[in-house]
Amino acid sequence: MAYTIGLDYGTNSVRCLIVDVATGAEPGTAVYEYETGQAGIIIDPADHNLARQNPADYIKGVKVTVNEAISLAKEADKTFDPNEVIGIGIDTTGSTPIPVNKDGTPLSMLEEFKDNPNAHAWLWKDHTGHAEAAEITALASDKHPEYLAKCGGIYSSEWFFSKILHCLRTDPEVFKAARSWVECCDYIPALLTGATAPEMIKRSRCAAGHKAMFNNQWAGLPAKKFLAKLHPELGALRDRLYEKTYTVQTRAGKLTQKWAGDLGLPAGIPVAVGAFDAHLGAVGSGIAPGKLVKIIGTSTCDMLVSESSRDLADIPGICGIVDGSILPGFFGLEAGQSAVGDIFNWFVNHIQPGGLEAGSHETLTEKATNLKPGQSGLLALDWNNGNRTVLVDQRLTGLLIGQTLHTRPEEIYRALIEATAFGALTIINRFEQYGVEVAEVVNCGGIAEKNPLLMQIYADVTGREMKISRSAQSCALGAAITGAVVAGKQAGGYDDFADAQKAMCGIKQTTYKPVAANHRVYRQLYLLYKQLHDAFGTNQWSGKLANVMKELLNIKDGTNA
Amino acid sequence: MAYTIGLDYGTNSVRCLIVDVATGAEPGTAVYEYETGQAGIIIDPADHNLARQNPADYIKGVKVTVNEAISLAKEADKTFDPNEVIGIGIDTTGSTPIPVNKDGTPLSMLEEFKDNPNAHAWLWKDHTGHAEAAEITALASDKHPEYLAKCGGIYSSEWFFSKILHCLRTDPEVFKAARSWVECCDYIPALLTGATAPEMIKRSRCAAGHKAMFNNQWAGLPAKKFLAKLHPELGALRDRLYEKTYTVQTRAGKLTQKWAGDLGLPAGIPVAVGAFDAHLGAVGSGIAPGKLVKIIGTSTCDMLVSESSRDLADIPGICGIVDGSILPGFFGLEAGQSAVGDIFNWFVNHIQPGGLEAGSHETLTEKATNLKPGQSGLLALDWNNGNRTVLVDQRLTGLLIGQTLHTRPEEIYRALIEATAFGALTIINRFEQYGVEVAEVVNCGGIAEKNPLLMQIYADVTGREMKISRSAQSCALGAAITGAVVAGKQAGGYDDFADAQKAMCGIKQTTYKPVAANHRVYRQLYLLYKQLHDAFGTNQWSGKLANVMKELLNIKDGTNA
Repeated sequence: MAYTIGLDYGTNSVRCLIVDVATGAEPGTAVYEYETGQAGIIIDPADHNLARQNPADYIKGVKVTVNEAISLAKEADKTFDPNEVIGIGIDTTGSTPIPVNKDGTPLSMLEEFKDNPNAHAWLWKDHTGHAEAAEITALASDKHPEYLAKCGGIYSSEWFFSKILHCLRTDPEVFKAARSWVECCDYIPALLTGATAPEMIKRSRCAAGHKAMFNNQWAGLPAKKFLAKLHPELGALRDRLYEKTYTVQTRAGKLTQKWAGDLGLPAGIPVAVGAFDAHLGAVGSGIAPGKLVKIIGTSTCDMLVSESSRDLADIPGICGIVDGSILPGFFGLEAGQSAVGDIFNWFVNHIQPGGLEAGSHETLTEKATNLKPGQSGLLALDWNNGNRTVLVDQRLTGLLIGQTLHTRPEEIYRALIEATAFGALTIINRFEQYGVEVAEVVNCGGIAEKNPLLMQIYADVTGREMKISRSAQSCALGAAITGAVVAGKQAGGYDDFADAQKAMCGIKQTTYKPVAANHRVYRQLYLLYKQLHDAFGTNQWSGKLANVMKELLNIKDGTNA
Repeated sequence: MAYTIGLDYGTNSVRCLIVDVATGAEPGTAVYEYETGQAGIIIDPADHNLARQNPADYIKGVKVTVNEAISLAKEADKTFDPNEVIGIGIDTTGSTPIPVNKDGTPLSMLEEFKDNPNAHAWLWKDHTGHAEAAEITALASDKHPEYLAKCGGIYSSEWFFSKILHCLRTDPEVFKAARSWVECCDYIPALLTGATAPEMIKRSRCAAGHKAMFNNQWAGLPAKKFLAKLHPELGALRDRLYEKTYTVQTRAGKLTQKWAGDLGLPAGIPVAVGAFDAHLGAVGSGIAPGKLVKIIGTSTCDMLVSESSRDLADIPGICGIVDGSILPGFFGLEAGQSAVGDIFNWFVNHIQPGGLEAGSHETLTEKATNLKPGQSGLLALDWNNGNRTVLVDQRLTGLLIGQTLHTRPEEIYRALIEATAFGALTIINRFEQYGVEVAEVVNCGGIAEKNPLLMQIYADVTGREMKISRSAQSCALGAAITGAVVAGKQAGGYDDFADAQKAMCGIKQTTYKPVAANHRVYRQLYLLYKQLHDAFGTNQWSGKLANVMKELLNIKDGTNA
């Protein structure tokens, strides 16, 4: 028997998953909820844009979850032996950069910075750098449009340099104390392999390519001169970042004696270079050319791969096209929706808090299931958290149209689900318009697992069968697969991803097929969705309403100032 | 001492108000909630358009409320003597036509029809005749545009002939049994004066002019040939309707001996010709040229008068311009919003039912009061029940834009109030664009009385001082004023309305003045409101989004079919 471990660092918790490399069976798993802040996130009530995390939670999380998962595996299977674990893989959220000192210690773990949110991990959904993102976009558009060509033409406030530049501008003391900035997905492998000194870390191609404008074919990170134009100190920082990046078939190093002892695992087993959760979630869902993997949670990631040898066009509005970011040898294409589950949670928790029974997801879903497509007369735009793909615009907001005095909560709830489905279809259409075929759709993530209504609506809206990844923990499974590949065939793992995926991945029996009558109605509704989408989200259409959401935000910003 | 009685037939109840004609003091008042149906309305769960009432409730309501109001007046003032009541006036909802037999008995009071909703009163908000309304509009636009010129260019499903034609089409038996159709505001005076036989009834100018295309200067009701084109039987009905109409300074007749006995009032006192509640509400709020009276409840009516001698232009989208409909000698101009309080009730009762405390009007109002204009980033269209003025379109629906994951219920609640204020401003602007000055705004109705936040927002949005009518029962007071005028000076009343209003009407001390800083923000927001209003509500602007709400309703109708 041979096992690998996948560590999956999410937004609120970290999960450890032990996987049988021969079958994909999962004998043990454990979750640790981060302790700091609200549901693991350090927030600022005065600034909705701020979202940080405590790196100490990440470290504690490894110990707690690996030990617990091993105990559970032993309980479940008396023959389970942690010495048969042959490799470890890691995925995390991102871009979640951490300022570190010359030893690679997060600044937040130093006494002087322990209470400073800027010295902590800057969680992916931190948007404090939105002004800096606009600045980077403007400069790159002007001087180096090629930097943005593979990331949708717009640099996001969620990404690496927006956050670092914002820190430099607003908290120079933290910036100055930082020897380097390290993505969470680079920090954990470095930690486990004893290679945290910034210059020793094998940086993730996935993180660098999708979030830091790193291009493997040219000069790596953006030019020093470019960064220096944004701020001289940012230019200087480039020398303290990295020149090379690595894909997930690379070993970050070997598990140290110390960590092996803490975790009850064999010392010296290989730890794979890290990657983002969505990317390894795609791996765990069996991603291959033509197979779209949708990871549906609070937001979504929509992942595709395309042979690196192909001459792939830039696709406007697709957040990232990075060689090797998902699978070595393939371009990884990343799209996504800024909010999906978050919109439903917002509605249930804040707008329609009709008590546990009347206003729960379950009750609303049950009532919404009894509605027919089009029956409510409602239509919504799914932009309550902006639009990641294809508009790449944080400053878009939600819209609901068609309500009457008879409109009921379940109708709005269903309209919100439908809106996210229309958003999903818009992404699929964009891929196909640019020659990237979507022949199959595999879904994973909590909502895909738990909400048959949503899956059926997605099938009916897109006119495509919706499949569900067999593992309930596709991201952690993907991480475990990287562990199996870096271990290699000789050690009981695999030499390539296709073999590993074939053995370790699968699809659930239940799938959701489109109902023709529903699809017909949704085709009509989608035309209206697209009208609103283009009217409020683009300048191309009529341009006459594209100002509304932004001016409302401008007025809002004015009143709050 | 001299008193008059105003009877105010509302949507859910009837009120009797006893008024001192010298001072406007109100020694006694009583309310009777209609017993039939849901809150007094016969509904059909399968057809949201249906809304009927039981005429028997109207009759019982007179007896109950007059007797109770007299008792209360006697309790409050030992010297009060019902023999000092010198006249009665009546206002009702409308268009609320009742099919009656040759004696003037409502068909619903006959054994054979007692369970048939079509034989009852067709309440103003019954929209079952929407197809017939469109048909009447089409035919009139083609053959007799002058019929629609004074009622906004569109014949509404709420009005007289839409309802009668719908009855003729869907329940010919009821139609055949009806000798005539009588507006509620004509039926009650006829009842009290013993003149219910259809040919004896003095029909209200107000009802006829605003809802039945009656034009005093031409041939009265629409031509027989016109009505016959819609249906031969409708043409035949014209002979059984009326040729003449009367304004509210006319006596409908005298209180019969029998009714005097039942009510404890002197026999023979005059009863005024009836009118609609909003029109007499305007009278009770002291309406005069330049003084806009806003009656704010579940919906609103916005009333103005303009000298009959003036050459008044047709005003597109203004529901009615009728000579003598409010005050004799003046054109009455009626505009309105299809839903105001109804929108807030919808949100509180159905969308945000956070329990008595968290989700009440009071709590939401309190929280919304703490928000600044523009702070939420939200904007709404107030069309959840269509748009009466200036778009005259039942098939428009609501819209909410700007919501994020941080949007809270009180922000939506405030946005809905603001939306109705923007709708109110749109009406004022339309009047002024067509030369009808609005120098002063007097509000009445429950919401104006009870919601200082709403009144302040209306002041801030319109940039005008909002005054409140002194009487909490402006409609019933207006009816009592008509009672005082038909009684005449010699009997202790008045010979004209100006004198009666001067004595009997007033304004509350508290008024709401616009705050300059708020008005500045609302001017910006109004530009955005107007953009959405024109984009979704008109064809003139870009025409490219005017289809959205209607196609959603078409799809909805398709799925329900």
